[in-house]
Amino acid sequence: MSEEPQAPERRSAPRTDVRRLAEKQVRDVAELHAILDGALHASVGIHVDGQPFVLPMACARDGNQLLLHGSTGSRLMRALSAGTPVCVSVIHLDGLVYARSAFESSMRYRSATVLGTATEVPADERLRALEVLTEHLLPGRWAELRAPLPKELAATSVLRVPLDEWSVKVSTGFSEDPAEDLDQPVWAGVVPLRVTLGTPVDAPDLDAGLPAPSHVRDRPAPGDAATS
Amino acid sequence: MSEEPQAPERRSAPRTDVRRLAEKQVRDVAELHAILDGALHASVGIHVDGQPFVLPMACARDGNQLLLHGSTGSRLMRALSAGTPVCVSVIHLDGLVYARSAFESSMRYRSATVLGTATEVPADERLRALEVLTEHLLPGRWAELRAPLPKELAATSVLRVPLDEWSVKVSTGFSEDPAEDLDQPVWAGVVPLRVTLGTPVDAPDLDAGLPAPSHVRDRPAPGDAATS
Repeated sequence: MSEEPQAPERRSAPRTDVRRLAEKQVRDVAELHAILDGALHASVGIHVDGQPFVLPMACARDGNQLLLHGSTGSRLMRALSAGTPVCVSVIHLDGLVYARSAFESSMRYRSATVLGTATEVPADERLRALEVLTEHLLPGRWAELRAPLPKELAATSVLRVPLDEWSVKVSTGFSEDPAEDLDQPVWAGVVPLRVTLGTPVDAPDLDAGLPAPSHVRDRPAPGDAATS
Repeated sequence: MSEEPQAPERRSAPRTDVRRLAEKQVRDVAELHAILDGALHASVGIHVDGQPFVLPMACARDGNQLLLHGSTGSRLMRALSAGTPVCVSVIHLDGLVYARSAFESSMRYRSATVLGTATEVPADERLRALEVLTEHLLPGRWAELRAPLPKELAATSVLRVPLDEWSVKVSTGFSEDPAEDLDQPVWAGVVPLRVTLGTPVDAPDLDAGLPAPSHVRDRPAPGDAATS
């Protein structure tokens, strides 16, 4: 994982420069993409009527933009698609770091923050955006489903945020205890954290003859392809 | 899981009333507590200089308040502790719901949103707040660590947000496909999602004689106690 600036891949901007723990900032766009590609949802921050709100939304990267999915009709979705500034946050917790003190205890994580403006994907691009979202969340599923109905497309809102202004922080490794703590008589190390998939469960109204397809049975855990 | 309002346990407020998928709203404070108690981090939304920001922060519930932990000195932490309005979002993704159409496909989740104002835990309560945070994130650890040093306490900021104005949404079960889709020749069901713990990894600078304690080796996955 490179910690070197890669200027051509990123538009730098002061407000996304990491000020705390700056050594954890990563400027490689491949790491941004890996973090987003391993995520099923993002936390989307907006400001409405003097109050910040954070909405969890399904997400999928589509090239240099992040697609976000919600239902039309919600007040916050309307504010979002009206072009208000947003902050999109994605984080993967990779481990619990047991240090020799509470102060040095921490977590392993990979975190991405995107600032920008959400806009609605135009109607004529909505079908493809839904395919990208569906294939990200349920890989292999799109081709076996019937095509979306016009009324379904009309009732669906997909937003997109360009991946122009962003920052990434990655925390790996173990605790960095000061020398005077190394003789503390306590274990130190990391307990890894992972999102795992359980055994697929048939819907109660499923036709008995329909088995789960291999893209369901053999589905890798989210982020497994992206995690180094 | 009750979907009935339990008025004495919750202060109702219009802006936390769920407007979309209102049938998923849960008003039982025990569900709020279970969601927060199963979380290692929260997404904290604030508004600074005309821009929303979302910060992932370590969290732990302490009775009727949520503790949030970050480093002093960060610009956003300063804004937070200055008493700006916040939105705190916690979500657990419990499963991927494969429906007979892209439109009805969804996720199982348990989600909590808290609105309020973050304030700094006063210096004379900080040690106890750190114990609550540490014991939530690393159960069993506090008693075996040395006491925090005065300089560590001075360099630590713990915020708290009262659990007064909140909403909870819980999505369980399977897809609710319309009758005309039930003869679609595709599998339908749920792939469960879970956060699991890996085998503890010793720190490279660990004294060879120090084994991982049982609270590390036998640690249950986050949220296991809270998940029904």
